Amino acid sequence: MNFASDNISPVHPHIMAAITGANAGPAMPYGGDDLTARAVDRIRELFDHDAEVFLVTTGTAANALALSAMVDPFGGVLAHEEAHINTDECGAPELFTGGAKIIPLPGEGGRISPATLEDRLAAFVHGEHQVLPQALSLTNATEYGQVQTPEEIAALAAAAHAHGLKVHLDGARLANALAALDCTPAEVTWKAGVDVLSFGLTKNGAMCAEAVVFFDTGLADRFIWRRKRAGQLLSKGRYLAAQFLAALEDDLWLDLARHANAMAARLATGLMELSGVRLAHPVQANEIFIHLPRPLHDALTKAGAVYYPWREMEETILARLVTSWATTTEDVERLLTYARAAA
Amino acid sequence: MNFASDNISPVHPHIMAAITGANAGPAMPYGGDDLTARAVDRIRELFDHDAEVFLVTTGTAANALALSAMVDPFGGVLAHEEAHINTDECGAPELFTGGAKIIPLPGEGGRISPATLEDRLAAFVHGEHQVLPQALSLTNATEYGQVQTPEEIAALAAAAHAHGLKVHLDGARLANALAALDCTPAEVTWKAGVDVLSFGLTKNGAMCAEAVVFFDTGLADRFIWRRKRAGQLLSKGRYLAAQFLAALEDDLWLDLARHANAMAARLATGLMELSGVRLAHPVQANEIFIHLPRPLHDALTKAGAVYYPWREMEETILARLVTSWATTTEDVERLLTYARAAA
Amino acid sequence: MNFASDNISPVHPHIMAAITGANAGPAMPYGGDDLTARAVDRIRELFDHDAEVFLVTTGTAANALALSAMVDPFGGVLAHEEAHINTDECGAPELFTGGAKIIPLPGEGGRISPATLEDRLAAFVHGEHQVLPQALSLTNATEYGQVQTPEEIAALAAAAHAHGLKVHLDGARLANALAALDCTPAEVTWKAGVDVLSFGLTKNGAMCAEAVVFFDTGLADRFIWRRKRAGQLLSKGRYLAAQFLAALEDDLWLDLARHANAMAARLATGLMELSGVRLAHPVQANEIFIHLPRPLHDALTKAGAVYYPWREMEETILARLVTSWATTTEDVERLLTYARAAA
Amino acid sequence: MNFASDNISPVHPHIMAAITGANAGPAMPYGGDDLTARAVDRIRELFDHDAEVFLVTTGTAANALALSAMVDPFGGVLAHEEAHINTDECGAPELFTGGAKIIPLPGEGGRISPATLEDRLAAFVHGEHQVLPQALSLTNATEYGQVQTPEEIAALAAAAHAHGLKVHLDGARLANALAALDCTPAEVTWKAGVDVLSFGLTKNGAMCAEAVVFFDTGLADRFIWRRKRAGQLLSKGRYLAAQFLAALEDDLWLDLARHANAMAARLATGLMELSGVRLAHPVQANEIFIHLPRPLHDALTKAGAVYYPWREMEETILARLVTSWATTTEDVERLLTYARAAA
Repeated sequence: MNFASDNISPVHPHIMAAITGANAGPAMPYGGDDLTARAVDRIRELFDHDAEVFLVTTGTAANALALSAMVDPFGGVLAHEEAHINTDECGAPELFTGGAKIIPLPGEGGRISPATLEDRLAAFVHGEHQVLPQALSLTNATEYGQVQTPEEIAALAAAAHAHGLKVHLDGARLANALAALDCTPAEVTWKAGVDVLSFGLTKNGAMCAEAVVFFDTGLADRFIWRRKRAGQLLSKGRYLAAQFLAALEDDLWLDLARHANAMAARLATGLMELSGVRLAHPVQANEIFIHLPRPLHDALTKAGAVYYPWREMEETILARLVTSWATTTEDVERLLTYARAAA
Repeated sequence: MNFASDNISPVHPHIMAAITGANAGPAMPYGGDDLTARAVDRIRELFDHDAEVFLVTTGTAANALALSAMVDPFGGVLAHEEAHINTDECGAPELFTGGAKIIPLPGEGGRISPATLEDRLAAFVHGEHQVLPQALSLTNATEYGQVQTPEEIAALAAAAHAHGLKVHLDGARLANALAALDCTPAEVTWKAGVDVLSFGLTKNGAMCAEAVVFFDTGLADRFIWRRKRAGQLLSKGRYLAAQFLAALEDDLWLDLARHANAMAARLATGLMELSGVRLAHPVQANEIFIHLPRPLHDALTKAGAVYYPWREMEETILARLVTSWATTTEDVERLLTYARAAA
Repeated sequence: MNFASDNISPVHPHIMAAITGANAGPAMPYGGDDLTARAVDRIRELFDHDAEVFLVTTGTAANALALSAMVDPFGGVLAHEEAHINTDECGAPELFTGGAKIIPLPGEGGRISPATLEDRLAAFVHGEHQVLPQALSLTNATEYGQVQTPEEIAALAAAAHAHGLKVHLDGARLANALAALDCTPAEVTWKAGVDVLSFGLTKNGAMCAEAVVFFDTGLADRFIWRRKRAGQLLSKGRYLAAQFLAALEDDLWLDLARHANAMAARLATGLMELSGVRLAHPVQANEIFIHLPRPLHDALTKAGAVYYPWREMEETILARLVTSWATTTEDVERLLTYARAAA
Repeated sequence: MNFASDNISPVHPHIMAAITGANAGPAMPYGGDDLTARAVDRIRELFDHDAEVFLVTTGTAANALALSAMVDPFGGVLAHEEAHINTDECGAPELFTGGAKIIPLPGEGGRISPATLEDRLAAFVHGEHQVLPQALSLTNATEYGQVQTPEEIAALAAAAHAHGLKVHLDGARLANALAALDCTPAEVTWKAGVDVLSFGLTKNGAMCAEAVVFFDTGLADRFIWRRKRAGQLLSKGRYLAAQFLAALEDDLWLDLARHANAMAARLATGLMELSGVRLAHPVQANEIFIHLPRPLHDALTKAGAVYYPWREMEETILARLVTSWATTTEDVERLLTYARAAA
């Protein structure tokens, strides 16, 4: 009953099989191998765009490196105040950008409203006394598991572009967003105005596989230097590529995300039947933010359920429960059984 | 017949088996898992020292992060002018240290002499007008496959320590050095004065596994922030740990290095029997630097042999051939056969 | 009638006389001259503390360099969201600290409440996933001309120290604060818990003279390297020193600040007599933040009055008027005459 | 008899008069004043080029900021191994460029030969494994007081441009070079291929006045952000501008440099008449590098002569003596008298 995060899950068998399958004979190092070439092509095909694609090992590296190609060291990145780049990456964006500033914006459920964005941009009127706003960074699904539609992304991207900003999308959970949306990968990214995407697989069944995808290929000009300099150029690149090839084969990555989302919906529905339980945000992807009465929380903890106590209040706990490709209905039912018994 | 580098080799079967073996059930993320705890203990045991150990994915990251914990942004790192950190890491040390300066020193075969070190340090007499020398970085085996003895390391480390510098060792090929030396891992590292070690497994049969080992544990104080900020904290750390556990079991890592060294010796011996062939450096580990007459080089290339043309001269090529755990006697004999036919 | 800022004023005659007086014969460069030694001693005497003192040319450099000696590149600096370091220095703190993060805190009139500080610090519970909070930066007088008492500073400093943070004070207008307080420079700085002070003279009659004053002398350990590396070590240091010596002689600096504050009080009192005029903050130092009806604002602008329209609303303007040592009663009365005529 | 450096000299009376002359009434801050506009125009006129010009306070800041606008953080700057940016600025270029690497080149008297430059550039064949060479930085007069002709500069600039590098010139002693050359400021800078110039006045009679002059105006695009972020944007910019206006009026700056050069020539000629004295480099500007027998050195030191012992050998001292606008024939004759007496 471990719902702490989606990154506690193991590697999906098909992806692990692809890794072991790649383990034969010599291969040119540093991404000069055939698998890497194929993975890059496959990602271009997936997004229906002749993008520049670079494989790295972590989402933090993908986000920070992507931003470093989008802003100057004296630049500003507008993002939600609770965005991963602002609160959970220990200043990696500041390191890789050479000290650019993240400008935090408020917003419900990890979303930013176009009005909030416009107001903030309107305050940059002091020239060189302020940093130069050069990028907007969005997250889909958001830190609160909220799914943004192509229309929502497009409205924000249009406002950003109108002010000369580039648009970055943190897609650590892009699969979960797509599984919830009725649209193509292209529609929720470059067709909506996204210039650079951090495309994450690790939370969705991979071992350590993330891609920085430049739809605005001009920004990728010298990115190979940035990736190498960041210690993110693996000498044995074939093993990163194999993960992408397996995940993208027959839409496995979307099936895994759909399953994770379904498990979250089932778990949330079950919990909502209990008295005193209240959702903090609608469950749209694979994350549940829910207020639990303390006695219920204590009983679940005692029973061995693991999840993240997002915020502790007097009589309730705001808990975060995350499901993944590896979450089973048994896991869900087991937790619900304990919950019902406790309620 | 690919002798381009040791990083073209696949993952050793035992190490791959350990990776797949780690792929069961949930595990706490970010190195909070049992395998990581065991791997760290195993490395401490190997070096017979209660060291602080941090796993990362590339040698460039290991070196740059290690140095970032040893010097200030206004510091200087003395190193051989052809050291990997100075010539092959695209400024990663400068990025992670916040702009520290690498002070290049000359030396035969990638070695630095204590006299050269002393002379260079003696020139730092202008206070804040110069960077502050704070670290010496050595490499064993060197970029030219030369093996440094504990006594050689100790002499350099003593000089560095006498000037208040800390000592870093780039151990991307430490296994090959140890396989050639009759000493323990402890004797050629901390007992010889090494404060921080970049311990590499990737070139020696792993997929992507490097460790930063702090023998001077005070320097590791806040290293977890540095690793996370660099995008080097894997969420699924178990797969890094598994590689170390398998490699260090029953001294597999040393057996693999011994094999690689033996293949290099056999290949060099065979080539030296041919007329016009001359070694640039004695073959002490798994790298051969050898002058080949152009006709021989052309014949080998035509036959499909792959290796690195280090420097091209009028009538000869200075070639670098690297062997690995995966190099077979057949590979060696096949190249020698072509070579003898051409000579 | 120019009330745009205190930095539009020229250099006070006594200070200019000291600069020209320093212009005789050779002097050892880079602060090795006698005047610099005397200025440093004088500042120590002024603060009644054996502090480490370093002269620089701008307040931005003083703040950013001070912080660079207080936090790691992966550190966090808590400060008011409208603090100069967060909104007006173009990321200089990020540059000189190597990418440390400024954590913005809300608060009335540029003040931070101890409760707000405690709440924010309580949120740092995720170890290396967040930056490491290492410093609190305060400003006195604040960006809104509010004067903080030794007791207010002490309460915030105590909370910061209790969490292991160091305390920085941006003293660009410390003279104006002291002129309004009945206390010594020591009482409102180190005796209240300030570890490092940016001591500004430029806004208060100097040409370009700021000092970084380390009351926590351990933090100054290698500061000379930071200052040089930042391009802030003047070769002809005597001219910086002369400005401090003249300003601190017979408390000239405090007389100038008292005059500036008096002019602000007189101007505010006069404006408040007019209908529809409302102060946004009490006038405690040399800055006035006042709501002016649009017709009044337009009339004053038409008459040639210069000041900063902080925020524009439908029917009023929130205006910032700043006085300085050079502001005359004639300047004030002239503006008031126009204002009364317009009202 | 102080020949330690040209920066020990005071400010020239005309320049000091201009500073005091600028001290009247209010002026818009941050370079928004009339004097700054005039100084910028005057510098454009001087170089006969519609350049972008930015005033700063130190040569280190000018050099480091200039380079930061010319190279990426993963870039390389080729320069003489003894160039000021490589040996005397404590890593300021590394700080302001975000970690770019200075690639040291050997050369007699601080000069680089086109062949040396070509050879070094030819070694950059490993793509992202090496930094990207993007700039060549020259110095005129060199660190050894050698004057480079427009033809010499042009040959090096042509080679640099052919490889896509931009060309920076450290002109801390440009006046001394021009005083020795029979050419215009334009001919030895942009007409010879210099893209960005650090134009120094401080060593030549100013208080603290340097300008970054972009002949390649495209590189100046966002330089105002870099200058502010570096703490180099003075709020009272008029006092920097006044120094340039006075120095450039009626070619005062060249007269001062001519005088300094003449004093150096006279001093060198006198010393060369003594037995055992040998010049290390021809005296072309205002620096003398000369081998002095130890007894002579000891006698001069005993007599109170101050100069810099560049290198100490068994029987001789390699001494550096620098003259300036303020050096008098009496200073020179006095030292020569002592020298003759000692010889």
